Amino acid sequence: MRKIGLIGMGNVGATIAYTLVTKGITDELVLIDKNEKKVVADKLDLQDAMGRLNSNTVIKIQDYAELKDADILIITAGKSSAVDGSANGRMGELGFNKEVIKDMAPQIKASGFDGIIIGIMNPNDCMTQYLQEQLDYPRHKIFGTGTFLDTARMQKVVGESFGVNAKNVSGVAMGEHGASQFVAWSTVQVNGVPLRTLERSHSIDLAKLEEATMLGGIMVLQGKGYTNFAIATCAVRLATAVFADEKLACPVSAYSDDLQVYIGQPAIIGKNGVEALTQIALTAEEEQKLTNSAKVILEKVNQLRA
Amino acid sequence: MRKIGLIGMGNVGATIAYTLVTKGITDELVLIDKNEKKVVADKLDLQDAMGRLNSNTVIKIQDYAELKDADILIITAGKSSAVDGSANGRMGELGFNKEVIKDMAPQIKASGFDGIIIGIMNPNDCMTQYLQEQLDYPRHKIFGTGTFLDTARMQKVVGESFGVNAKNVSGVAMGEHGASQFVAWSTVQVNGVPLRTLERSHSIDLAKLEEATMLGGIMVLQGKGYTNFAIATCAVRLATAVFADEKLACPVSAYSDDLQVYIGQPAIIGKNGVEALTQIALTAEEEQKLTNSAKVILEKVNQLRA
Amino acid sequence: MRKIGLIGMGNVGATIAYTLVTKGITDELVLIDKNEKKVVADKLDLQDAMGRLNSNTVIKIQDYAELKDADILIITAGKSSAVDGSANGRMGELGFNKEVIKDMAPQIKASGFDGIIIGIMNPNDCMTQYLQEQLDYPRHKIFGTGTFLDTARMQKVVGESFGVNAKNVSGVAMGEHGASQFVAWSTVQVNGVPLRTLERSHSIDLAKLEEATMLGGIMVLQGKGYTNFAIATCAVRLATAVFADEKLACPVSAYSDDLQVYIGQPAIIGKNGVEALTQIALTAEEEQKLTNSAKVILEKVNQLRA
Amino acid sequence: MRKIGLIGMGNVGATIAYTLVTKGITDELVLIDKNEKKVVADKLDLQDAMGRLNSNTVIKIQDYAELKDADILIITAGKSSAVDGSANGRMGELGFNKEVIKDMAPQIKASGFDGIIIGIMNPNDCMTQYLQEQLDYPRHKIFGTGTFLDTARMQKVVGESFGVNAKNVSGVAMGEHGASQFVAWSTVQVNGVPLRTLERSHSIDLAKLEEATMLGGIMVLQGKGYTNFAIATCAVRLATAVFADEKLACPVSAYSDDLQVYIGQPAIIGKNGVEALTQIALTAEEEQKLTNSAKVILEKVNQLRA
Repeated sequence: MRKIGLIGMGNVGATIAYTLVTKGITDELVLIDKNEKKVVADKLDLQDAMGRLNSNTVIKIQDYAELKDADILIITAGKSSAVDGSANGRMGELGFNKEVIKDMAPQIKASGFDGIIIGIMNPNDCMTQYLQEQLDYPRHKIFGTGTFLDTARMQKVVGESFGVNAKNVSGVAMGEHGASQFVAWSTVQVNGVPLRTLERSHSIDLAKLEEATMLGGIMVLQGKGYTNFAIATCAVRLATAVFADEKLACPVSAYSDDLQVYIGQPAIIGKNGVEALTQIALTAEEEQKLTNSAKVILEKVNQLRA
Repeated sequence: MRKIGLIGMGNVGATIAYTLVTKGITDELVLIDKNEKKVVADKLDLQDAMGRLNSNTVIKIQDYAELKDADILIITAGKSSAVDGSANGRMGELGFNKEVIKDMAPQIKASGFDGIIIGIMNPNDCMTQYLQEQLDYPRHKIFGTGTFLDTARMQKVVGESFGVNAKNVSGVAMGEHGASQFVAWSTVQVNGVPLRTLERSHSIDLAKLEEATMLGGIMVLQGKGYTNFAIATCAVRLATAVFADEKLACPVSAYSDDLQVYIGQPAIIGKNGVEALTQIALTAEEEQKLTNSAKVILEKVNQLRA
Repeated sequence: MRKIGLIGMGNVGATIAYTLVTKGITDELVLIDKNEKKVVADKLDLQDAMGRLNSNTVIKIQDYAELKDADILIITAGKSSAVDGSANGRMGELGFNKEVIKDMAPQIKASGFDGIIIGIMNPNDCMTQYLQEQLDYPRHKIFGTGTFLDTARMQKVVGESFGVNAKNVSGVAMGEHGASQFVAWSTVQVNGVPLRTLERSHSIDLAKLEEATMLGGIMVLQGKGYTNFAIATCAVRLATAVFADEKLACPVSAYSDDLQVYIGQPAIIGKNGVEALTQIALTAEEEQKLTNSAKVILEKVNQLRA
Repeated sequence: MRKIGLIGMGNVGATIAYTLVTKGITDELVLIDKNEKKVVADKLDLQDAMGRLNSNTVIKIQDYAELKDADILIITAGKSSAVDGSANGRMGELGFNKEVIKDMAPQIKASGFDGIIIGIMNPNDCMTQYLQEQLDYPRHKIFGTGTFLDTARMQKVVGESFGVNAKNVSGVAMGEHGASQFVAWSTVQVNGVPLRTLERSHSIDLAKLEEATMLGGIMVLQGKGYTNFAIATCAVRLATAVFADEKLACPVSAYSDDLQVYIGQPAIIGKNGVEALTQIALTAEEEQKLTNSAKVILEKVNQLRA
């Protein structure tokens, strides 16, 4: 049966918990947060909903030991200072979140958890890597949401630009889930037609679309002070891919042996976590951007290691 | 096709919007709030999620005219001062919310909307009634969530007390969605067995269970400052009952010809709204509580009318 | 993660498989049938659908060894001669289905399966008991769909008779899933109102409603030669109750220590199978019918044991 | 609210009805078939399931007048002789199905239905065209499932060949839903990587994969005498795309002004039916195959017109 642990019950964590419960995605759910009053309140609120749902979820709280037999652990703990609106915002919470991980890692380790970890903490790539290192965890069993969200935003802005549904846009945003990310335009298709082909007949401002992709989160942050719907949807999507051993092809923050960092890139997600990385042919310019983004991430990782 | 309007994008409204979109319950969704930045942000956040969902929802914002052909209008606008923790808390926001309705009603009227209205504003019963009067709307086409939520809480606390699933508890909480509400214990069954029968063999403290039912919301409020998951789930459940013409038997705040007020009572919800009231045999004590609760509500309604 | 085994891919089994896959209820599905061509065809047809579904299911076929780590085993194998239209029809397939079980039981045993078994073979009560005995399986871990289906039919016919949704009708059909079954009218409520109360004001022909309940399946059989939609829905509902440890209160064919047979009665279904039997107060007449039905079942069980 | 009409309750139609009801996709459903006993039986069987479902669907039968306000009409009536196993099988039922349409068309017309028609009758392309002509219906408001199913099969066989999930394979099968169809390999991607690129490093037998795609249905037919799961899933997917105005990019049998026939090609499906055709760059060889396939279809259309 399905069991998920969830550490961090801020706006994102609470939305994930609500989604897992109301969609009946997990049979058991373990909620953990520093703010116990919040966890208790969310648990009660979810249980108040149970009589109106077709599904059922057993909810446990504040007990790391319960992670022992969990299949998946989703981590949203820590601060998100991105609200300051600077494109580089996601890097700001570095120090605070490092302490969060240093506090949490031994407790995860002690629980005996050996499932798949989905990291949502920011800055996503380096925090995922730092957690992996602190846990000394198999690298394929831990990954970050990374540019899975940025890719969704790219799909939206490209879709709007062509008047098509976001789901009809394929292709990936890569690199850091932060300011050094980029859209690999050579991979993008609209309704199955390569963007490069469409460029000939439409006037498309790729730089503008790329900016809209990267600033998508900032616009939400400025309007409501946090983002939760899209990131929660991405995390839940990845969790179901693990449960159903879906071999889902999607970009996540996965470890690159070449680049020696966790970084947003196309991967295959199944019950073993990152089951493979997808080798895609990037242009020289895109390769350059990827290498550059890896450097930015590595610098932060080294700050964390220090 | 299905179209829902939603006025009020606070914690409850936003959770309802998220649920409607991620579960693909409505084909079109119109979001309206005084705080335009918040509506824009929630819309963007929902659209960022779209590429990861199987369903699709067309989202429009801030346009009353779009309500014209909506099937359902859900209203969560206004303040909720219940957070002060006093059992009578839901009545505190009376004056503020009256102004909200006076502002909103003419715009709803002007839109030509003629579907079903589900009211969530507090104090629920009298606000639903005040809105009905301001709109001069057919009474069966507007109802409040009322004690549908309190009933869910009763199901939970009784279920926990007997170690059974909330869904296995039937029966209703009635009266005001507030301090004068009561559980009609004569209607309650656990796993199909009347509570009155179980009382003989178990020691059950009904007064304590009733208090837990009524204070369920307060406990959530104290922990996180608002309630959203359960009330959103209730509102969405009622909306689907209307769409599917479900003839759902459940307690809502419906108009009572006898008591001359909107009050929590068992009703049948279908595509025409409140299609019937269910005549249930209450004990004399329960009848007395209902009459008393109606008086409390009527007093507030008269304050609003003044 | 969730894994279901399914033995028997006739009309019922195939519909169950289709439902499990298209609703994403199980992560892995093992299909087994004597007619290998049919299993292969259903597997291919389900896999052809996979590209159009949001969920993913790993499908394996014809391998008892795969049951080892399955959570649930659903058994629909064997013949259903009920099509002859006689009310006693479900008893006709006794001899044939006994051989089916004798062939299947050692293979289930050899697989090491130790999850929950949901029996759908007919005559349901005695076949479930015979399988339990052949497997020497813990009684609470195996149960039959029994009168869960008949109860759904009762809900429908009573609902139609009062113009309400079947879901608003509570109460149970009990006894044999066959001719000696009965509706325990003392348990039935419509919109939360006891039928006994409604009888005073409405003219209700209970005998007619009871006949309609029992003949519900026959009418479907006469029209299309088999029943599949409702029985498959019931089986899937029970499977989800097991996965989610739902403590679902519903009538199934469970073992009665008092009556020494498997028989339709209210039970609590959770991850351990039948977690409890619900003690409900029947009238003397209903008790008599239950005892009588148990005798009918026991006679058949003894024929099987012979 | 959502309303679907469904003409034809054979294996495919019944599976579609079951899916629409158990997934709560439509609020109202109208079922029509020459075999009234079958429709009645399926209706009863679906209603017997209703008490176990969270959703509700109002089911009406055998009444063309009820199509007046339906949003979508799905047509699965007629014979499917494809079971003979010849690749050209789908063309065999031409004469029989022509009569079915001649009988049905005036009744659809008389009903005043003006929604979207999804045709599943075979041979799919020419039957869709013949129905459009008999109804003198706006061409964008009627389309056939066409190569949407064949594309799903291509996704499966290519996915299996690379060990990836079918959903990770994009690209289209085009042309006739029959022997002259072809896979437009230039459009196919695996995990976002063009097949043409993969061909360099893997040894892929495209001819074999193409044969497997086209014969996918035949293999199912040989095993169980009919196909229903995948085609029903495709039809339901298209219906939800219409309801939600999804602008879904997918291949269907749509009318080509250039080729003067209904033929499988990439289109955009929304609330207005075929809202656009997607212009994709085919290779010269693929263009040739498309033209050839159109000729095959046109010949059949002319036979029907005669």
